[in-house]
Amino acid sequence: MSKRIENYLEDRKTLIEEALKKFMPEPSGLAGDVISAMNYSLFAGGKRIRPILCIAGAEAVGGSADDVLPVACAIELIHSYSLIHDDLPIMDNDDLRRGKPTNHKIFGEAVALLAGDGLLTLAFNLMAGYGVDEKVEKTALLRVIDLIASAAGYKGMVGGQVVDISYEGKNPEPAVVEYIHTHKTGAMIAASVTAGTILAGGSEEEAKSINRYGQQIGLAFQIADDILNIEGDRRAIGKEIGSDKVRGKITYPSVFGITESKNIQKRLIDDAVESLKRFNERAETLRDLARYIIKRKT
Amino acid sequence: MSKRIENYLEDRKTLIEEALKKFMPEPSGLAGDVISAMNYSLFAGGKRIRPILCIAGAEAVGGSADDVLPVACAIELIHSYSLIHDDLPIMDNDDLRRGKPTNHKIFGEAVALLAGDGLLTLAFNLMAGYGVDEKVEKTALLRVIDLIASAAGYKGMVGGQVVDISYEGKNPEPAVVEYIHTHKTGAMIAASVTAGTILAGGSEEEAKSINRYGQQIGLAFQIADDILNIEGDRRAIGKEIGSDKVRGKITYPSVFGITESKNIQKRLIDDAVESLKRFNERAETLRDLARYIIKRKT
Repeated sequence: MSKRIENYLEDRKTLIEEALKKFMPEPSGLAGDVISAMNYSLFAGGKRIRPILCIAGAEAVGGSADDVLPVACAIELIHSYSLIHDDLPIMDNDDLRRGKPTNHKIFGEAVALLAGDGLLTLAFNLMAGYGVDEKVEKTALLRVIDLIASAAGYKGMVGGQVVDISYEGKNPEPAVVEYIHTHKTGAMIAASVTAGTILAGGSEEEAKSINRYGQQIGLAFQIADDILNIEGDRRAIGKEIGSDKVRGKITYPSVFGITESKNIQKRLIDDAVESLKRFNERAETLRDLARYIIKRKT
Repeated sequence: MSKRIENYLEDRKTLIEEALKKFMPEPSGLAGDVISAMNYSLFAGGKRIRPILCIAGAEAVGGSADDVLPVACAIELIHSYSLIHDDLPIMDNDDLRRGKPTNHKIFGEAVALLAGDGLLTLAFNLMAGYGVDEKVEKTALLRVIDLIASAAGYKGMVGGQVVDISYEGKNPEPAVVEYIHTHKTGAMIAASVTAGTILAGGSEEEAKSINRYGQQIGLAFQIADDILNIEGDRRAIGKEIGSDKVRGKITYPSVFGITESKNIQKRLIDDAVESLKRFNERAETLRDLARYIIKRKT
């Protein structure tokens, strides 16, 4: 990974961490427990790749992190909610996430469920509140809220999750694993980067190109996760290697084999970079991020 | 109940049912199961009182149902999501809701969880999409999305739920039951009626009065539910009478006794009507709705 992109990731991650701390409430009052649970998962680590992509999507059309921080943070809240719900015993039943006990192991299942609900709801609070208080283009913001809600809901992440669970232990055709990955992970990644572009005033055509880029890296991102679950380092990723296989999870390696999965991944990244051809050097960060996505170790 | 308000409830309910049918997707594709689960609970009956209040809140300042239908429907989606999550075994563990099997009894717990997530997310889709497509005042809409997200989240419904669950079987002071009821139920009811007023162009002062009215009837509504759980008709309400007591739920009757609960309820309705004094005959429906809330049998 180039020094440049390493510094970029570090710098933007710090911005996001600071903004998240500012936006999140302190635990207090009778419902303090659920606020603690929300904070616990949100600040339990993570690469902050989705909000970083949101910022990079803004920068590609001449915007800056300041234009999109509330939306970038809202996207991370939605990501955090999805992990809490996924880890529940009635879903994936995971005890560890990023090397730490999962939310329900600390707070109990009922509070964990509600912490997820609370984070998802707070995400929309943050986005809509941004439009009420700040000088932001209202129609662009409403488009972004619409886009993110679509990507998070039954047309995106929720749809991907339900298919993921229903095919566990089965042997589906390739179209099913593509559906799962593009919906479960790809949709929110594409929405993240596209939201940045729209909010920073990118044109319709620019937003379309960025969205295509986002879909390609989004799918590549989930294939990279699948591969890390086989070839990764347990301590680096903070959960057991091989857990997907034990559980009969539908993954690209399980359907295509690991060599072909890496070929698909490489083609997706090439296509993603190709999607950016209308952009000048401003999109260099997005090009580097595409390459980073399949090289990362965590 | 007066014939006038009976007709009003029937008429507005029909409007809402039709709009909900129009807004909801048909089950199709790989994720059809979760769409079926979302539709199942949304169309399993219900008084549609929150969206009706949203319409009535608009009418009180000279607006109409047409101005607010997408928001009114979004509110009902949020209500439906909250019931699905509440009924899960890790929460209230209810098998029956309105006389029908609860969502997880039909679709399983994982799909029910995701159906709740899907409805909550779709609600924001519907509201934001309304602003993208239609000629609606964008800042008012963003304020309404903000208000509804606040009322649904940790500052409102989610906060009330977590306290409700954590005090089950305990003997708390009166402030706790007031907190539970105002947050769990009152917040979304107040937001529903206030959203209608804001969206229909009501002034800051009008919205404040309507919000006070909403908080008062919202608390009275939950006390009425508590009383129906003791004195109601099993077939009419579609679940077992006395279930709150069996479960050690914190209710107004359990804390204040049934006579004092009825007195509190009556005072709340008087105060709610008083909150409307700045309004002319346009708010007559809201006055009738306040009285209906404590007279209803279901």
